[in-house]
Parts: sequence; C-alpha cells; structure tokens
Amino acid sequence: MTTGPHGPRVVARGAVDDKGQVMMWLEALRAWHAVHGALPVRVTALIEGEEEVSSTNLEPFLTAHRDALRADVAVISDSGMCDIDTPAITTRLRGIAYVELVVKAAQRDLHSGLFGGSALNPINALTRILGELTDAEGRIQLPGFYDGVAEPPPALAAEWAGLGFDEAAFLGSIGLAVPAGERGRPALERLWARPTADVNGVWGGYQGPGSKTVIAAEAGAKVSFRLVPGQDPAAVVGSFRAFVDARLPPDARAPIEVFGTAPGIEIASDSRFIQAARDVLADEYGRPAVLIGSGGSIPVVESMRRLLGMDSLLMGFGLDDDQVHSPNEKFEWRCFHKGLRSHARLLGKLADR
Amino acid sequence: MTTGPHGPRVVARGAVDDKGQVMMWLEALRAWHAVHGALPVRVTALIEGEEEVSSTNLEPFLTAHRDALRADVAVISDSGMCDIDTPAITTRLRGIAYVELVVKAAQRDLHSGLFGGSALNPINALTRILGELTDAEGRIQLPGFYDGVAEPPPALAAEWAGLGFDEAAFLGSIGLAVPAGERGRPALERLWARPTADVNGVWGGYQGPGSKTVIAAEAGAKVSFRLVPGQDPAAVVGSFRAFVDARLPPDARAPIEVFGTAPGIEIASDSRFIQAARDVLADEYGRPAVLIGSGGSIPVVESMRRLLGMDSLLMGFGLDDDQVHSPNEKFEWRCFHKGLRSHARLLGKLADR
Repeated sequence: MTTGPHGPRVVARGAVDDKGQVMMWLEALRAWHAVHGALPVRVTALIEGEEEVSSTNLEPFLTAHRDALRADVAVISDSGMCDIDTPAITTRLRGIAYVELVVKAAQRDLHSGLFGGSALNPINALTRILGELTDAEGRIQLPGFYDGVAEPPPALAAEWAGLGFDEAAFLGSIGLAVPAGERGRPALERLWARPTADVNGVWGGYQGPGSKTVIAAEAGAKVSFRLVPGQDPAAVVGSFRAFVDARLPPDARAPIEVFGTAPGIEIASDSRFIQAARDVLADEYGRPAVLIGSGGSIPVVESMRRLLGMDSLLMGFGLDDDQVHSPNEKFEWRCFHKGLRSHARLLGKLADR
Repeated sequence: MTTGPHGPRVVARGAVDDKGQVMMWLEALRAWHAVHGALPVRVTALIEGEEEVSSTNLEPFLTAHRDALRADVAVISDSGMCDIDTPAITTRLRGIAYVELVVKAAQRDLHSGLFGGSALNPINALTRILGELTDAEGRIQLPGFYDGVAEPPPALAAEWAGLGFDEAAFLGSIGLAVPAGERGRPALERLWARPTADVNGVWGGYQGPGSKTVIAAEAGAKVSFRLVPGQDPAAVVGSFRAFVDARLPPDARAPIEVFGTAPGIEIASDSRFIQAARDVLADEYGRPAVLIGSGGSIPVVESMRRLLGMDSLLMGFGLDDDQVHSPNEKFEWRCFHKGLRSHARLLGKLADR
C-alpha cells in the first residue's frame, strides 16, 4: 500500500508473528485517514511472514520491487522499550551465524561392551569440540573470531551505562543469579555489543528412559554465534570449520550446514529520523527516549540497507517480560496504545521536516 | 528344571534375547535324554528375560531360591568364539557403571538474542563437562578412576597377545580405521582389560530441521564406564559426581541418576570346569580352545558368585559379526550345531570327573 501525497516516504514493516506491531502501525495510519482524510507523508507498508523461517523470499522480493519500495527511511517497531514508562530507540543489533554440525563415525550403532576402547565415539568427540568453544573467561576460541569487533562508540556506551540496568533482576526473573558470558564486561555490553557462542541444540545416541549401552554412529549440534558490527559472518563460519577440523579425531567426518548469516548493524544516531523519533517519544511519554541496543537480529535491516540503500528507524514498544517466542507471549495494551499514538505523532513530525 | 540323578549340578542360563543359546543348551539336554533316557549330571536351567532392562528381579529371585539354585558351576553361553573355527572360554568380563546426568539452568527456554551473553547455557556447560572426560591420550580424568585397576595376569596377557587379533579388520568391518581409547595399549587390553568412558546418549534444546535460536532450560546425557577387576563401581559413581561438581558453573544444578553398576570379573582359569571345557572344545573343534576376555558385562556372573558362592564357566559360540543388539542380529547354524555338540560333550565330561 502506497498512499499520501507528499513528504518523505516511509516503509512500515513487521513480521506476522508480531501482529500487535503491525496493527499498531495500521491503526496509526487509519487514525490519520479518519481525521484528515489523507496521510501527511507517503507510506509503503511491507508485511512479510517468513522471518522465523529465515525470510527466504524477502531479499528476492526487495530486489524485484526495488523502485516501489525505495524510501527515505524504514520504520520498524520490532524492538523494545527500556521499561514500560521509558521509550527507546534501538540503534544497534547483533547479527548471527547459525550452523549445524554432525560428527559421523562408524557405519552403524555399536555395542559399547564389544567396541568400547577401540571404536571412536562421535558423542565424546562432539562434546570435546563444543566444550572448547569458550575458555574459562567466556572468550570464544574460534581463530580470529574477535577480529574487527567494534567497541560501541563512547557516547553510546555512556548512555547505556546510565540506564541503570539491573542484571540481577533480569536473571532473577528466569531463575538465575550469576551472569554467564565474557568476564569483565558490563551486562549491556555482553547483551548488545559482544558476540556469543550458544549451542542451541544437541543430540545423539540413546535419549529414552533407562539405559542402553550404545556407541552411536553419529551425533549433532546446532550452534549460533551472535555477531556484532565489524565481524564478517562468512569468516566466522569459515573459522568454525577450521576450529572443528583442528579437533576432529582421525576417522570422523563432520559436515557443517549453514542455516543463516547476518552481520551486526549500527545505525547512526544523529539522523533527522532518529531525532524526530526522540521528539515524538518525549512528547508522548513526557520523558526523553533512550538509545539502546538489542542482542537479537533483525536481518531485514541489513537487507534494506544493502539492497535499497535505506536505513531503519527502530522505534519499538516491547517489554523484557513479553515472553517473545515462548508460551503466553504478550504485548501490553498500554504499549500498544502509546505506541500507536507515537506512530501517529511520527507521521506528523516527519511531514514537518 | 532340575533333573538327572547324580554328579555335579549345573545351572544353564541365557537371557531371552539370546534365544539361540538357550535352545542350544536345551537341545543338548534333549539329546542326552533321547539317547540315554537320563542326564549324566544334575542340571538346573535358569532362564531370565530381563537382562536388557537391568535384571531388576534376578537378585531377589536368586536370594529367594538360593538352595534350589546352588550348584558346582554355572554354565553360561552368552560369550563368543575367537573365530568360527577357534573355540574360546571367557575368563574376564568388564563391569559397568551407567549414569544419567541432567544439567539444569533457567526456569524455561530462552531466546538467545535476548539472553545470550548473560544467561547460562546448560548445553554449553554439559558439553564442557563431557568433553573433559578423557585427555588427549585417552586417559579418563575422573579422580581416582584407575585406583585398583588390575593388570591381566602375565600368562593371560601372553595368551591374548598370541591370538593375532587384527584390529584393522575389526574396525574396518564398521567403517573405521584408527583405534580410539587409551594410547599405548594393545587392542585386546583396551577391549577386555582397560576401563572406558562412553557417552551413550546426549540431548538438549532444538533437534528438529532448520534453526531455532533457543537457550535450553536443561540438557542431559547418559554416560557409561566399563570397569575392570579391582575397580569399585560405587566409587566410580562418586568420583563422577565430584568430577561434574568441579566443572559445574554457578547457578546450574546437575542431578545424577544411577541406572546400573556391576564390578569387573576375573574367573580362575585353572579350575576343573575350565579344564573340562578346554577338553571338550578341543575334541569338538580339533584344536585347542583359547582363553579370552570380553569387553561387555554379564552381571549375573557377579551376582551368582556373591549370592550363591558359585563361579561361572563361560563357554560361548558368538562371533564378532553377529551384530548383537543391532538390526539383522544372527547366530550361525555352524556355531549352533557345534555348540550343541560341545554342550552335550561337556555333560559327559563333567560326569566323568
């Protein structure tokens, strides 16, 4: 939908799983229509439903409709607030490299009594490899992994430090007490500006009740690296390949499949769009918006920058306890309502500039 | 079934999954009946069907029927030959300690973008623990693990060395080429006389197709230690507990469940029963029987020794390529036939002594 006669063009975008965000945006457009009969700026709504399955068709779509989609800024609300009373604009996103590793040994499952002590056990081999992903200080051991990792700009780091983030409460809400990750880094740096290595899944051998004395033929794992600006996802995948090969016992094979890569993103915080968003959020909430980062990835931000030459404005209204992607996911009515009003304000503010 | 008028009493035993062995024994008894109308020795047949689910009821049964079951020797055919033309008597069995370890972290699964870098990942923690089970030389790292490990008697080690075991062919049959296990030990020692640590199963997080950026709430593994004479299974379980605790991150819990323990067994090779078996096997095969070990466990051997004060004679006819516990498991007709004849000969030989 492209509508509105003049001013900058805006792309509003939300994945279908973020229906609340999409509705918030569409309601803001409808409100303008209802009051004024027209929008104050030209808006193209881009709604896609494949983000959670790697958006296979998104980039071909962006490329095919490059001219129709090109705009001054992409407004995305798939991000969060600092807390329910403190609005935020996200200017930094982590990227990702997601791989699956399978270690293969014998042609078939073996009896551990007959073969134990002679035959290679691929679960032992896999756990040895994965167990060495980080050292005792939480530093990731892939060769060259930290090459190019950019520290957040000092002004941004200072703004984050001023947020008073309470990691104990953050972890307490999920039943934990002791921070994991890199030692010696503030919590928000670890969450927003430092790369990670998480094993997201592992399997092999007998997983049922009781015991079975099997040596499995193969074992596998899914591993994801959250990346930050300056890291090259393809280089990280290549380094993981080398890391595995250096630890693979003779006789084992270890195919690696890549499920998705996206670089980390930093958005300049001094643009007129960020300033407009700060103004309207301050008007709506009666307090200044803060600039935050996000530990997650929104790959379309990088796709639109690369394919359409367009930066994004990440003005979102999610809360830490929304249980995103979990059972009982929610989006607060108060966030929906003030988010809707903020988007309506943004349309007017952008028309003024 | 207790039958036969005089001479030593013999207990024949086989798990139901070893039906060929049971039938071989019963056919030998039937042949004696058919020809002589009676057995030359008193025989009690003990058939149980729970070995593969840890024989929960066997020890109570042995205890309750102690007097009825007591005999001079237990004859068990749940063991193997050296090759199809070379009969063997097994005098050494490995024991086992089988445990399940579950590492628990957060109260629920987490999104790795929101929590990665702050929340403990139990799969990372589990793989680090399991990856350190052995060192680069294949030595098991549990504290005190090798305490009491008995070397095989020199005469037995010499007999094994003379068997001409071809490990390359043994591994080649399952698609492997390079021995795993402890460096610097002969193959048959690694298989029969050295303890092992095998991860028999591992699980955690997302195991389906494609990717999911989850940090799991927990991850688990099944681990078995094959034990040798001189090792105390309870001490090994305790040492594993200490090994895990020493590597467990703060915030994690790691319950361990024990599924079964049995010590390694050594049977004196100079008894009259072993000598009788050597004689009948030499008669049947036209070549001497060899004394071998087994890497597996037959827990009933230890149970009968402890509860009934009775040693076992392990005269078996399995082959390395029988695919025990795998699809297409087999028991060769030739082994069945000559095994049946050997058992019939054994009954006569025992009656002579």
